[in-house]
Amino acid sequence: MTTHHDLPAIADPDRLFPADPATRAVARELFALVENAPILSPHGHVDPRLLADDVPFTDAATLLVTPDHYVTRLLHANGVAMDRLRLSADTSPRDVWRAFCAGWPAFAGTASGYWIACELHHVLGVGQPSEKHADALFDEIAEVLADPDHRPRSLFRRFGIDVLATTDDPLDPLDTHARLAAAEDGAGGPGAPLGGRVIPTFRPDRYLAAGTPDWSAAVDELIAVAGEGHTGYAGYLTALANRRAHFVAHGAVSADHGVATPETLDLEPARARELFDRLRVAEVAERDPADVAAFEQHMLVEMARMSVDDGLVMTLHPGIHRNHHPATFAAYGPDTGHDIPVRTDFTRALRPLLSRFGTEPGFHLVLFTTDETTFSRELAPLAGFYPSVYLGAPWWFLDSPYAIRRFREAVTETAGFTRSSGFVDDTRAFLSIPVRHDAARRVEAAVLARLVTEHRITQSQAAGIIVDLVDAAPRRVFKLPRRPGA
Amino acid sequence: MTTHHDLPAIADPDRLFPADPATRAVARELFALVENAPILSPHGHVDPRLLADDVPFTDAATLLVTPDHYVTRLLHANGVAMDRLRLSADTSPRDVWRAFCAGWPAFAGTASGYWIACELHHVLGVGQPSEKHADALFDEIAEVLADPDHRPRSLFRRFGIDVLATTDDPLDPLDTHARLAAAEDGAGGPGAPLGGRVIPTFRPDRYLAAGTPDWSAAVDELIAVAGEGHTGYAGYLTALANRRAHFVAHGAVSADHGVATPETLDLEPARARELFDRLRVAEVAERDPADVAAFEQHMLVEMARMSVDDGLVMTLHPGIHRNHHPATFAAYGPDTGHDIPVRTDFTRALRPLLSRFGTEPGFHLVLFTTDETTFSRELAPLAGFYPSVYLGAPWWFLDSPYAIRRFREAVTETAGFTRSSGFVDDTRAFLSIPVRHDAARRVEAAVLARLVTEHRITQSQAAGIIVDLVDAAPRRVFKLPRRPGA
Amino acid sequence: MTTHHDLPAIADPDRLFPADPATRAVARELFALVENAPILSPHGHVDPRLLADDVPFTDAATLLVTPDHYVTRLLHANGVAMDRLRLSADTSPRDVWRAFCAGWPAFAGTASGYWIACELHHVLGVGQPSEKHADALFDEIAEVLADPDHRPRSLFRRFGIDVLATTDDPLDPLDTHARLAAAEDGAGGPGAPLGGRVIPTFRPDRYLAAGTPDWSAAVDELIAVAGEGHTGYAGYLTALANRRAHFVAHGAVSADHGVATPETLDLEPARARELFDRLRVAEVAERDPADVAAFEQHMLVEMARMSVDDGLVMTLHPGIHRNHHPATFAAYGPDTGHDIPVRTDFTRALRPLLSRFGTEPGFHLVLFTTDETTFSRELAPLAGFYPSVYLGAPWWFLDSPYAIRRFREAVTETAGFTRSSGFVDDTRAFLSIPVRHDAARRVEAAVLARLVTEHRITQSQAAGIIVDLVDAAPRRVFKLPRRPGA
Repeated sequence: MTTHHDLPAIADPDRLFPADPATRAVARELFALVENAPILSPHGHVDPRLLADDVPFTDAATLLVTPDHYVTRLLHANGVAMDRLRLSADTSPRDVWRAFCAGWPAFAGTASGYWIACELHHVLGVGQPSEKHADALFDEIAEVLADPDHRPRSLFRRFGIDVLATTDDPLDPLDTHARLAAAEDGAGGPGAPLGGRVIPTFRPDRYLAAGTPDWSAAVDELIAVAGEGHTGYAGYLTALANRRAHFVAHGAVSADHGVATPETLDLEPARARELFDRLRVAEVAERDPADVAAFEQHMLVEMARMSVDDGLVMTLHPGIHRNHHPATFAAYGPDTGHDIPVRTDFTRALRPLLSRFGTEPGFHLVLFTTDETTFSRELAPLAGFYPSVYLGAPWWFLDSPYAIRRFREAVTETAGFTRSSGFVDDTRAFLSIPVRHDAARRVEAAVLARLVTEHRITQSQAAGIIVDLVDAAPRRVFKLPRRPGA
Repeated sequence: MTTHHDLPAIADPDRLFPADPATRAVARELFALVENAPILSPHGHVDPRLLADDVPFTDAATLLVTPDHYVTRLLHANGVAMDRLRLSADTSPRDVWRAFCAGWPAFAGTASGYWIACELHHVLGVGQPSEKHADALFDEIAEVLADPDHRPRSLFRRFGIDVLATTDDPLDPLDTHARLAAAEDGAGGPGAPLGGRVIPTFRPDRYLAAGTPDWSAAVDELIAVAGEGHTGYAGYLTALANRRAHFVAHGAVSADHGVATPETLDLEPARARELFDRLRVAEVAERDPADVAAFEQHMLVEMARMSVDDGLVMTLHPGIHRNHHPATFAAYGPDTGHDIPVRTDFTRALRPLLSRFGTEPGFHLVLFTTDETTFSRELAPLAGFYPSVYLGAPWWFLDSPYAIRRFREAVTETAGFTRSSGFVDDTRAFLSIPVRHDAARRVEAAVLARLVTEHRITQSQAAGIIVDLVDAAPRRVFKLPRRPGA
Repeated sequence: MTTHHDLPAIADPDRLFPADPATRAVARELFALVENAPILSPHGHVDPRLLADDVPFTDAATLLVTPDHYVTRLLHANGVAMDRLRLSADTSPRDVWRAFCAGWPAFAGTASGYWIACELHHVLGVGQPSEKHADALFDEIAEVLADPDHRPRSLFRRFGIDVLATTDDPLDPLDTHARLAAAEDGAGGPGAPLGGRVIPTFRPDRYLAAGTPDWSAAVDELIAVAGEGHTGYAGYLTALANRRAHFVAHGAVSADHGVATPETLDLEPARARELFDRLRVAEVAERDPADVAAFEQHMLVEMARMSVDDGLVMTLHPGIHRNHHPATFAAYGPDTGHDIPVRTDFTRALRPLLSRFGTEPGFHLVLFTTDETTFSRELAPLAGFYPSVYLGAPWWFLDSPYAIRRFREAVTETAGFTRSSGFVDDTRAFLSIPVRHDAARRVEAAVLARLVTEHRITQSQAAGIIVDLVDAAPRRVFKLPRRPGA
C-alpha cells in the first residue's frame, strides 16, 4: 500500500493514457490541446452560497467525505457504520477522517479513489490517506485550507471555470445567483471576480412526482406563488411556465428531470386536467398508480413543450431506484448511497415525446443513463436520427475512466462525436470538478488516439474533435453564452 | 480536418489493426491470407436490375447518399432537413452532394464514414469530401463513373463477388434473376459474365405481418396467384410453400424474417386456421392484438417447418422498432433512418420453435441482433448447444469495427468460431460491399491476433480459422454452391 | 491446426497476459506473487467419494468428456449426436474420445478448449487432441492415469487445494465428508492426508421449488426425517434449520440457491403457512403459478433469515432457463448442455430481502450472474452500499478470460476490489480446478497490470490486491477456516 510519503500513481503526467507507446504518444498530444481549456460545467450540484459567501472550507472530512455519497457508500459497504461518517456530538470531523483513512485501501481502482487521490495531490498538494498518518494529514489539510488561496472563489478562478450550473428548486428566488451575477458584472460582492458565471438549473421533480406524499402541498405552494391567480391545472401550468421564465431571466439554460423511467405520454388537455384534479385531492395511498404514471408521463411531454417555447434545454436522468434501503432512508434521509440503477428502455418510452417534438427546431433533449445496454442499442440510434436528441456524457456510476471509454466505443460508430453534450460532472464535491474534467479529457484523448493509431481518423481530425468536445460542444448543446471577448 | 489533398487515414494498409506492434504483425499476416478471397454476400439489398441492366452510376449523390439511410440519418441528426437529401425539382444531385460534403466532418469515427472514405479512396480513387471542394469532387466522381470500368458489372467482377444474394418479395417472378443466371451460363446477356451468381432471398414479412393494414390484401393476392385453387389457411400455406419452391428453383438459399420480436408459438393447426380466418376479414383496427401476436408467432414456427422441408436457411432479424417518427414516415415513407432497436430476448422466445426443430438435421437458423446484451447471455449459449442455430454476424448498427470485436469477444469463449455464419453485409450500397467485407476481415484478423499473442491459440490455428470464416463458413451455413472448379 | 507434436499455444508461460510489453511485464510480476498460492474452492460440484475412495481415473473420455456438459454441448452443436457422447453398450470410452478429438478444432478460442488444453499439457503432460492421433493419445492418457501419482488424492495434494466445497442435498448424511475429515484429522482413511479440507454445501433447491412435480414428496421426506415431530409449515422450517445445523457441524460454510429469478418476497408467517398448505396438497398442474412464485420468493427471504441465524453464507445463482430442449431432457435428463441464461434484474428483485437483512452484521450474500448487463448497472452499486452483498466471480458462461476482464472493468470503478468473493470455479471437472484458478489469477494480474500502467494504482497496491483476492478475500467472504499454522 502507498504510504504517506510515496508518490501516488496519479502523480504521473501520463495517467489514464493507454499503455501502448504509439497510442500514448498521440493521446498525450491530443490532451495537451485541451488540458488548460476553461471548464464548462452545465449540470452539477454545488451550493451557490459557497461561492457567493466565499466561506472557507474548514477540514478534510467536511470537504471530502461527509457530503459525498460516492465516498460514504463504499465505506459503509466495507463495514463502517453510517453514524461514524456523519458529524454529531459524538463524531468530530477528525473522527470521520480517521474512519475514511482507515478505509482508504478499499478505494483502489475506483473512480472516487482516483478523484480524491488527484484532489489531494494535484489540487491541495498534500499526501495520500493512510490509517497511520490520518491525523497528520488532517492537520496538513487544515493548514492548506486556512490559506486564502484555497477559499472557494480563489479555487473557482484557479480551476478556470467558465460556467458552473447549480441545481435549484423552481420556487428558489435565485437571489444568490443574482448576487453572484451582480458581483461578476462589477457591482461589487464578496471579493475578486470569479471570472465565470454561476447559473441556476430548473429542477421541477417534486412538483411533477404525483406519487409522492408531499406533491399536493408542493403544487399548492407553486400555484399560490406563481399561478397569477389561476387555479387548478391551468394555474399549475402557468406557474411552471412562470418559474421557468424566472430561471431564464437569471441565466438558466436547462431544465433537469430525474425520473424513475423515461416513459412519456401525450394526453389530451382535458384528460390531463381530470387526472390532476383527482390526484391533487387524494391521499397518497389512495392515488391510483396508473393515474400517477399517466400524469407523470404526460408532464414530461408538457415539460418538453415548455422547453420548445422557452428554449431551456431538457435533460433527462432516468433509471434510478432511489432510497433502496428503507432503514437507512428512515434514519439518514435521501442521498445516502443506496440509489441503485435499474434497467431502462428509451426507444418505446420516448416515442410520444419525440413524435411531437423530436424535429422541433431549437429543442434540445440531453439523455443520460446508468444502463450501459442502451448506449449502442437505443441512445446512439436515437441521437443519430433526431436533431433534438443529444448523448449526455455517461453519468453517475458511469462517469469513470473505463466507463467513458465504453460509452464512446459503443456510441461513436453509429452517432459520431457531434451528437454528444460533452462531459457533465454532476457533482456536489467542489474540489472534484477540475479533477473530473481532467480525467474526462484524458479519456477522450485516449479514445481518439486509438482511432488515430488504428487509422480511422487522422490526428488533425482528432485534434479538431477533442477541442470541439471540450468547448464548442457543451456551448452548442447547452446553449451556453460564449465568453465575453472570446 | 482532412483537406481534399491530404492522404486520408484509411489509406493506411494497417487500418483497423491493433496498435500493439506484436499483435499488429500477426493481424497483418492473418489478413493477408484472406485479403483477396472471393466475396460471399448471402444477405443484402442490392437491386438485381442494377446488374442485369448494367446501368451506369450517374453521380456521387445517387451513388453514395440518397439511397443510404445510414448516411441520410446522420446528416438529418446534424440539422440537414430531409428535403435537402432527396432529389426533387428543387434539389439536384449536386445540391445533395454539397449538403453531404458540408456535413462530412460529423462522420468521423462512424462506420458509415469509414466505408465511404474507403469507397472514395480505394474503390473510386478520388479524394475525400470537404465543403470547400464539394463541386470539384462531384465532377471528379462523375468522370470516374463515366468510365465503363465503373459500371456495375465491371465492378462486380473487380470486387471478386462469388455470390450476391438480393432480398425479394415472394410474388416476385424472379425474371431478373433468371436473366442474370442465363447470362452467367453463357446464354448471352448484358455484357461480359459477372463471374459470380446473383441469387434471390425469400422475404415474406408482408404476408406474415397480420397487424399491418395491407396484410389481408397481400394474402388475397398470394393465395390467388399461388394457392393452386385452395382457399383460406390451406391456400395460404400452399401458396407460401409454392413460392418458396419457386425461389429455390431460382437459386435461393435462404428465407429472411424481419420481425419486431423473436417470440414464437406452436399452435394446433385448427387454432391457427381459426385465427387466420378471423384476422383476415377484420379491419386492422379491429384485429385483437393478442390474436395478431399469436398468429405471427405461430407463422414463424410454420416458416421453420417449411425450411425443414425445403432446405431454405431461416434467417431472423428481430428487435427493431420501425418508423419511430410518425411525421417523417408520413412524409418520406419507410427506410428513412428512424428504425430504432429495442431490447430483445431470445432464450424464452425461441423455445417453441427450437423445441420442435432445434435438432432437426439440415435445419439452419441464423440469428441476428442489434441488442449486444444477448451476445454472451443468450446467442452464444443457444448456438453452443443447438446444431441448427448459427450466430449471424453483428448486424445493422453493430456491423462496425468495434462492434464486431465486441461480438467476437463476447461469443467466442462459449461458442467458438464454428457456430458463426461469417460476415453478412446486409447493404443496399453496392460500392460498400468490398469495403465492408475488407473491414470485417481486418477485424477478424485483429480478434484472432489477440488470441495468438495472448497464447490461447497458435498462429497456424488462427490461419485456419480466418480462412474458414471468410469462405467455408458462409458456404456451410448458407448452403452456398461451391465455385465450379474450386 | 496443431498437430500432436507441436507445442500448444497454452504452453507459453505468458499465456493470458496482455500483449503490450510494459503491461505484460507488470502482469508477470503480479502473477508470480500468487501463482503457487493454495487453492480455495468454496463452491463446486466434485463428488466427495472421488476423494474419499481415491478411485483411479480410468480413461480420457470419462475424465474429460462425458461428465462435462461444457464439452458435450459444443460437440453436440457441431453435429455430434448425444448418443455418441455417452457410454453405453454401443459406445466405449475410446469411441467417445475419438468423437471428441475429431471435434476438437471447434474448441479453439473457447474457455473449455483452453482448460482442456492446459489440463493435457500442464497437468497430465501429454499432447493435444487431434483426429489422427486420437487413439494414441487415449492410450497415452490411460498410461498416465494408471500412475498412483494421478489418483485423485495425489492430485488434490499436488494441486495445493486448501479447501474444496462440494454441493450436497440437505438430506445427505454427509458421512463421506465425515470420513474425509476424520482421515484429515489423523484418524486414518484411504491414504495419505489430503492436506486440505473437503466441506459440504447446503443446496436446498428441490425442497424450495414449489413448482416442480417432486416438491411435495421431497418436503414430506424432509419433514419426516428432520422435523422433530412438527408437521406442516412449522415442521418444514424446523427441518430446514436442522439440516443446516447438520451441515454446519460438518464444516459447511455456505448455502447455495439456484433459482430462475432473484425475486424475493417477505410474507407474513400466516400467509406463508397458508400458501405452503395449499401448494403441498395440490397436483403440480393445479398449483397456481402466482402462489408458487410468492412462496418460492418468500422462501429465499426465509433462507436469508436462517443464514443470519446460523452464519451460513448465502449464495445466489439466478437467471438460467434450465432444460431448454424438451426432447434432450426427456432422453438424457438434466445437465446435458441446454441450460440457457435469461435476462436478470437484481435491484428491485432483492429489495425485500435486503430491506430486512442487507445491513445485518455477519450476513453474507454472494451474487452470481450470467447476465453481464447487471455488472455495472446493479451488482456493483448493490455491493458498493450493502455490507452484506458480495460480487461472486463471473460464473458459468462468464468464468472465462475475456469475461472475467469485462467483469472487473465493469465493477471495479464503482465497487473496488474488496467487495469481491474471489474466484469460484463451480466445476465438476476435477482436473480443471488448478487450471481454472491459474487462468483466473492470470486475468486478475492482467486487470491489475492495466491499472498500474495507466497510473491508477501503484504496483505495490496491485500486489496487495492480488494477494488479497486469491487468498484473504475468499476466506473472508466465505468464512473459511484459516490454515492451521498459517
